Amino acid sequence: MKRIRLTIAYDGTNYCGFQSQNNAVTVEGELVSALCGLLKEETELIGASRTDSGVHAMGNVAVFDTDTRIPPEKIAIALNHGLPPDIRILRSEEVAADFHPRYHDSIKTYEYTVLNTRIEIPVRSRYTYHVPRPLDLGDMRAAAAVFVGTHDFSAFCSAGSQVRSKVRTVLGVAVDEMPIPYVDEGREIRIRVSGNGFLYNMVRIMAGTLIEVGEGRRSVSEVEEALQGGRRSKAGPTAPARGLALLGIQYREMDE
Amino acid sequence: MKRIRLTIAYDGTNYCGFQSQNNAVTVEGELVSALCGLLKEETELIGASRTDSGVHAMGNVAVFDTDTRIPPEKIAIALNHGLPPDIRILRSEEVAADFHPRYHDSIKTYEYTVLNTRIEIPVRSRYTYHVPRPLDLGDMRAAAAVFVGTHDFSAFCSAGSQVRSKVRTVLGVAVDEMPIPYVDEGREIRIRVSGNGFLYNMVRIMAGTLIEVGEGRRSVSEVEEALQGGRRSKAGPTAPARGLALLGIQYREMDE
Repeated sequence: MKRIRLTIAYDGTNYCGFQSQNNAVTVEGELVSALCGLLKEETELIGASRTDSGVHAMGNVAVFDTDTRIPPEKIAIALNHGLPPDIRILRSEEVAADFHPRYHDSIKTYEYTVLNTRIEIPVRSRYTYHVPRPLDLGDMRAAAAVFVGTHDFSAFCSAGSQVRSKVRTVLGVAVDEMPIPYVDEGREIRIRVSGNGFLYNMVRIMAGTLIEVGEGRRSVSEVEEALQGGRRSKAGPTAPARGLALLGIQYREMDE
Repeated sequence: MKRIRLTIAYDGTNYCGFQSQNNAVTVEGELVSALCGLLKEETELIGASRTDSGVHAMGNVAVFDTDTRIPPEKIAIALNHGLPPDIRILRSEEVAADFHPRYHDSIKTYEYTVLNTRIEIPVRSRYTYHVPRPLDLGDMRAAAAVFVGTHDFSAFCSAGSQVRSKVRTVLGVAVDEMPIPYVDEGREIRIRVSGNGFLYNMVRIMAGTLIEVGEGRRSVSEVEEALQGGRRSKAGPTAPARGLALLGIQYREMDE
């Protein structure tokens, strides 16, 4: 029996999130169905990040155990034949039998992209959140620095989350701007967040809060107060799913 | 009566091209319908570039005449309310009554994007053509230089085109590579072509030919021979529509 790790990219637009659900099309549901078709056996899949409905990924991770004689690195291409084009396995490899994509120490990196143009650009709208108002990048960066470190992120977690501890470590939040090719006004603003784990909707609430700071509707000290106070109502809104992508997950001891 | 020029961006995926057709959803059809809703009058629209089914645009151009009292620069935002989200007017402005988007001297710039990765990346697949094989950029650039200048482009025009002269001037063809954020292998290759006019499918046949050169399946001198011979069968295949975007159109005497 071998444990195989998959690195998975998807366009989340047409999926009700990663995790399998009854009566809903999910990324995991498609993966399990493609695995079943390939391996001709019932296979349990363990995913790393249960991304929300509409959220994209460049590098989510999942594992499964199999007795297949297909070489581990060839499984990616074989599985892709059975998957819809908006889901692709970028890489497959054998890992240790006790490797667990959620319990092993990892750094996850997410990116939230804001389209900061006067008018929305159609070819970018599936992957960005359009904010037409001017955004002050300096203020956004100052507020982003507030998140870095180990904090109780209760104020940045959607109600209904059942986790015991809401303490997480954010390793970095970078706020960068990029010009939009051939469009002479506006820019894309990319908020890249790395950490050892994230609460439900945490990155989207951080992004929604930073956008309000950029618009001048919320000060950096109000963000500090919201984080310290721990009340969801004091943080900003949850920014829309389509702007969010899970860029990748690095497993410390395993990969290095 | 005022003549209004629109700068139009669209995701072409769901449209049967720009030009109005019976029983088909087109960009022009949506524009005319939105104009009719806004101005409450029958309006004739004259488009600059009749992009094909599935081709995208960051800056196509069209004009119409109107007696509306809406200030010219406000028409963009008013029209956007009546348009589907995959079509956006980026700019509206009054132009001279004799301005014609096809007959006035202009430079059009198109970009063809190749996703040169081992496995397709879902968030890029709407806007790129996936070529998994290695591509030699130096060879592609050498072949691209063959197109520059004034030539009879008969070999780079789809059969069925009714135009009298197939002589066109290509001002430049740039072949550039860009890394794909957070994907450690592969790149995007962007073929940017500027010229004073293009034949039916010309940019897509140029792109299909350059890709074959990059793959080593066609030499630079074969591209020269194809161009000189004028036979469509001697050029490469027509690359898929989804990789092509009309970046913009510059009107010489008008804008400068």
